Amino acid sequence: MNVILDLCIVPIGVGVSLSEYVAACEKVLTDAGLKTVLHANGTNIEGEWDKVFTAVRRCHEVVHEMGASRIFTVMKLGTRTDRTQTMDDKTRSVKNKLGSG
Amino acid sequence: MNVILDLCIVPIGVGVSLSEYVAACEKVLTDAGLKTVLHANGTNIEGEWDKVFTAVRRCHEVVHEMGASRIFTVMKLGTRTDRTQTMDDKTRSVKNKLGSG
Amino acid sequence: MNVILDLCIVPIGVGVSLSEYVAACEKVLTDAGLKTVLHANGTNIEGEWDKVFTAVRRCHEVVHEMGASRIFTVMKLGTRTDRTQTMDDKTRSVKNKLGSG
Amino acid sequence: MNVILDLCIVPIGVGVSLSEYVAACEKVLTDAGLKTVLHANGTNIEGEWDKVFTAVRRCHEVVHEMGASRIFTVMKLGTRTDRTQTMDDKTRSVKNKLGSG
Repeated sequence: MNVILDLCIVPIGVGVSLSEYVAACEKVLTDAGLKTVLHANGTNIEGEWDKVFTAVRRCHEVVHEMGASRIFTVMKLGTRTDRTQTMDDKTRSVKNKLGSG
Repeated sequence: MNVILDLCIVPIGVGVSLSEYVAACEKVLTDAGLKTVLHANGTNIEGEWDKVFTAVRRCHEVVHEMGASRIFTVMKLGTRTDRTQTMDDKTRSVKNKLGSG
Repeated sequence: MNVILDLCIVPIGVGVSLSEYVAACEKVLTDAGLKTVLHANGTNIEGEWDKVFTAVRRCHEVVHEMGASRIFTVMKLGTRTDRTQTMDDKTRSVKNKLGSG
Repeated sequence: MNVILDLCIVPIGVGVSLSEYVAACEKVLTDAGLKTVLHANGTNIEGEWDKVFTAVRRCHEVVHEMGASRIFTVMKLGTRTDRTQTMDDKTRSVKNKLGSG
């Protein structure tokens, strides 16, 4: 089962600058062989369910190891059985509708 | 690693009534031995990371098997290494602050 | 237009204990005359759209005034035009399915 | 008060293809003069709080008018009082950390 997931990991209690933690998670995700796209409010990830969630767990371990004793995380995700769909398919589909609007 | 998680699974393309799918997920979660609290916008779950996410995956499989070809899911979750904390601890802590406010 | 909303406000950079900020938001919401239900991962709110979002904005102002210079917030919400529905209706509907399952 | 917001509007009960609804919301947002960036799991928006939330409300009205009687929406958002920050600043900050990692 494939999943398209938006991951947003927020370390709590380590100050207001969080980019080094986000960067560390990016490395975990790409090291896991996952396709990722960073955006202003999270990281989009595409891959097989177990591979994705193993990497998400690893992100939490790494952020804790970096010194954050508390983490708050939000994930939005989609699965579908009717057809395969990539992250690019999703944005292209909307852009096509906008172009013909 | 323990996690406190708010799970909201939204089957897409099966009409506007979703309660039977939410109920099916409740059964998956309790069958997995997880502590759950249903609320108006999701289900709160408390448990060990892998046990929780194995059950979340199973929820997706079950909802797909029930006929939903597309699922959109939102999860909010917290992990911490400084101390153990239950769902009850979290609400009690806020209520104590309100009581003394 | 009515809305049922799950609000989770996370002050960043003020340490790992967040309950006093959540309690302050509870007061803002109830002072605004909104029905709220606190749960382990947020606060459920029911009310008219503008009244709800005016209160959510006020929560941000109050949390900033309390000293949090950065806030991360997650909201899940539902609107419907086919019928009126309360927070109680939503949980009752799932529980009825579980009872007859 | 400025806000950076990730908006994901999911019409329920209108089938599995949702791109025309997302496209309609894109038009609402850009017609409101807001800066938006579409991504695979939502739309990032940057702007003044009231202007942003007035447009978000209008998106809900438009999607209901298009025939969706139920809508489920997720928003992640950030506000800060310590400094002004754009969506570009946020991704650049992470990419700088990755480049020097």
